[in-house]
Amino acid sequence: MRVLITGAAGMVGSKLTARLMRDGVIAGQTITDIELHDVVTPETPLHETIRVKRHRGDLAAEGAAAALVSRRPDLIFHLAGVVSGEAEANFDLGYRVNLDGTRLLFDAIREAAYRPRVVFSSSIAVFGAPFPDTIPDDFQQTPLSSYGTQKLMSELLLTDYTRRGFFDGIGIRLPTICVRPGKANKAASSFFSGIIREPLAGQEALLPVPRSVLHTHASPRSAVNFLVHAAGLDGHAVGPRRNLTMPGVAVTVGEQIEALARVAGNNVVALIKEQHDETIWAIVKNWPTRFEATRARQLGFVAETNFDDIVKAHVEDELGGRM
Amino acid sequence: MRVLITGAAGMVGSKLTARLMRDGVIAGQTITDIELHDVVTPETPLHETIRVKRHRGDLAAEGAAAALVSRRPDLIFHLAGVVSGEAEANFDLGYRVNLDGTRLLFDAIREAAYRPRVVFSSSIAVFGAPFPDTIPDDFQQTPLSSYGTQKLMSELLLTDYTRRGFFDGIGIRLPTICVRPGKANKAASSFFSGIIREPLAGQEALLPVPRSVLHTHASPRSAVNFLVHAAGLDGHAVGPRRNLTMPGVAVTVGEQIEALARVAGNNVVALIKEQHDETIWAIVKNWPTRFEATRARQLGFVAETNFDDIVKAHVEDELGGRM
Repeated sequence: MRVLITGAAGMVGSKLTARLMRDGVIAGQTITDIELHDVVTPETPLHETIRVKRHRGDLAAEGAAAALVSRRPDLIFHLAGVVSGEAEANFDLGYRVNLDGTRLLFDAIREAAYRPRVVFSSSIAVFGAPFPDTIPDDFQQTPLSSYGTQKLMSELLLTDYTRRGFFDGIGIRLPTICVRPGKANKAASSFFSGIIREPLAGQEALLPVPRSVLHTHASPRSAVNFLVHAAGLDGHAVGPRRNLTMPGVAVTVGEQIEALARVAGNNVVALIKEQHDETIWAIVKNWPTRFEATRARQLGFVAETNFDDIVKAHVEDELGGRM
Repeated sequence: MRVLITGAAGMVGSKLTARLMRDGVIAGQTITDIELHDVVTPETPLHETIRVKRHRGDLAAEGAAAALVSRRPDLIFHLAGVVSGEAEANFDLGYRVNLDGTRLLFDAIREAAYRPRVVFSSSIAVFGAPFPDTIPDDFQQTPLSSYGTQKLMSELLLTDYTRRGFFDGIGIRLPTICVRPGKANKAASSFFSGIIREPLAGQEALLPVPRSVLHTHASPRSAVNFLVHAAGLDGHAVGPRRNLTMPGVAVTVGEQIEALARVAGNNVVALIKEQHDETIWAIVKNWPTRFEATRARQLGFVAETNFDDIVKAHVEDELGGRM
């Protein structure tokens, strides 16, 4: 089994790479080769049995996609993309990377005339307000950002290219990933992770929205599990609708904080300072809250069932089990 | 008011051109210039007061879109596209014309940095089976054809470019246009018009599906009315969801035939021969049937209210009132 990962240097991409290196198998088959692509060279440890190739470059550059699929990877994880804030700030870059990069990759596969499994990381940003309390799988897709538009256009290509038999695609719509490791960033969603990550590291964290805000989360570990599970799915069981909303844990910010208290104690929670930010609140209050994700659950995608487990996953995976 | 029409040589495009020439005004303003573009030179009569320019070429060719918007038309009707059957038969051509042509036109407007009204002719092919009995405005978009995929991707661009302030776009999803003038073609939908048009011209017509098939129709005259109405709509009243499903007349094939009998008599109806075609039936039975079109009706779009009027519109507009 040859595996290609685009966006391999990103947070999810590097965790997926580490997981595949550890497992040595995916979709029931032994991994012989992993090719990693990103705009920066992915940092990859050596491996005893798996041949690893690293590629740095712009996926939308001429010939780049064709070169990547030239060794006919059996399984392609297409994770490359610029994030929501960047796609909104830089119109051309967003369309070039998120739409053109995807289409060029898909066309390169089509021209190579074989039929790999393609797993595409989409986003709940394909949905736009107003929302019902719980968003069903068949909710209409009316994105309100350029990022969401680009992800949805890519989903549509994935469905059509799959229907045409060019490849066997699965799109997974990721909820907010929490707890994100690393530093706080300028994303409006940054605080969802910050209020857990910073206090666990002994640092203060700001909470810019009311505790009543309800949001759906999945851990980085679950995101990797989703990708791995998607790799092995039976395409016929999925049917013609190839893009699946992933499950997650829907909790209020208050419930996030209660979970942190249960896992790490009240001294840690005391590091969270409420400081209302009208700008962040204006964005976050239009975000989707809870998803049914019925199809994904029926197809065997599993997320955490409570936020305590999301906090524990962070402590185990990022802090070596120590608080 | 300067007006640009792409796809101007097509059935709807040429009827829209004739209508604008006749009215001399649109959206409350006097028309001074009309520019017509298509892959074949549009046939256009002279006009006393309106300057007419005709352009022939490939909208997706380099520089073509920029040249078309260089005189900054205030109102752009983007009707160009290859039809459903052609987009399915020729993958590259469909994406090139229906997606790339649209995106290049939209980008040319963005680069020209002004803010015209853009009216885009989309299609109910953005929806895919299975369907409820009546399809609401907020039904999810899961196209099952390359044509529907391309139209939906274009709709998404239109929404995002409008949100970004590059232009003021309105997408209108046309139902089946009936009675189409001219000859029968290979489209699976051809018989919907054929069973009215051919008997009215004294010719036999084949009916390949059961009389119970329910389908939504609007006359060519209504399609032109939709486009003209969209040109004058208040964008603020439309809101962020820029693509509107148009109203139409939902009738069974049996009811179509009854209407023909009322308008033209039983001798005309006797020219319809039932000859079941399994291939056509397999396609048609997965088509949408009835649309709510609530938003479009509230925004003032008006279609015929019964199929008798659709038959009469054909007799008046195509047969000079004579049967």
